[in-house]
Amino acid sequence: MTPEQLKAYIRDITDYPKPGILFRDITPLLSSVEATNAAIELMAAPFEKSSITKVAAIEARGFIFGCAIAQKLNVGFVPMRKKGKLPWNTDSAEYELEYGTATIEVHADAFSSGDSVLIVDDLLATGGTVSAARKLVEKQGAKVQGMSFLIELDFLNGRSHFNDIPISSVIHY
Amino acid sequence: MTPEQLKAYIRDITDYPKPGILFRDITPLLSSVEATNAAIELMAAPFEKSSITKVAAIEARGFIFGCAIAQKLNVGFVPMRKKGKLPWNTDSAEYELEYGTATIEVHADAFSSGDSVLIVDDLLATGGTVSAARKLVEKQGAKVQGMSFLIELDFLNGRSHFNDIPISSVIHY
Repeated sequence: MTPEQLKAYIRDITDYPKPGILFRDITPLLSSVEATNAAIELMAAPFEKSSITKVAAIEARGFIFGCAIAQKLNVGFVPMRKKGKLPWNTDSAEYELEYGTATIEVHADAFSSGDSVLIVDDLLATGGTVSAARKLVEKQGAKVQGMSFLIELDFLNGRSHFNDIPISSVIHY
Repeated sequence: MTPEQLKAYIRDITDYPKPGILFRDITPLLSSVEATNAAIELMAAPFEKSSITKVAAIEARGFIFGCAIAQKLNVGFVPMRKKGKLPWNTDSAEYELEYGTATIEVHADAFSSGDSVLIVDDLLATGGTVSAARKLVEKQGAKVQGMSFLIELDFLNGRSHFNDIPISSVIHY
């Protein structure tokens, strides 16, 4: 299945979560095993030769693809969660929202200094969340080897914050 | 890897989320690709002959295993989310918390009447959340064909609410 064929499985929702925003709904894609399989293959493929040692994904939609991609790349999976959701010692990083800030956390033993990490999420928009995710990886002495998204909103230019990191997105708007 | 070997990857956290509670942390298991692969295999295996047509999982930890198990069973994946997180028309069901209630939602077109659904989550405790998940499946005219958990807290007897449904848990406490 090509990226263009996958795009047919994305449902456009107007004015969500607020007026003027066009939301890209991935649930019709997930409902098809062929489309989901193709999405996982296309998200993993660019990093199959990259010596990735861990896949990290961001709560909650990132978890859907993250573990499947980690299995595909034959490496462990690290969940990054919203503040207060992880039970053990954590490192945390803030990112900016339209009004105020939010925090994501990762367990303090998630990465070791030799790790080459692939950060996975469903969508790259402004890049705020994955920028915080990158800080968490680097705080633990590991390296972000790449970032993989199902969808990228090109007009928000999120990838401009990561000129030194290979970024792959399957579907572009 | 046997269930007993998998158990060695679970980290016990005392007094989380509050005093007197022993929390079972699955992040060390996820960090090992062999352990995660074994968990997915063991969670999927009992339902490989069950004519499952959809896997549904509950936000957020359920998503980690849900999509991988759907891939293993070669069926589509349905995310069930906390209130207000899904962008399209939804059905919703309430469940009880220690104080008050919470709501989970699913898109109104998630299931059709012929669907045989496997509900997946990381943990079966009192069964409140999966009981709400079951209501959502049945509200759309589909059938819950089974439930699969990584961990079951036997002393809370959550499975007593589902005597008519095959339930599988890999690790028991």
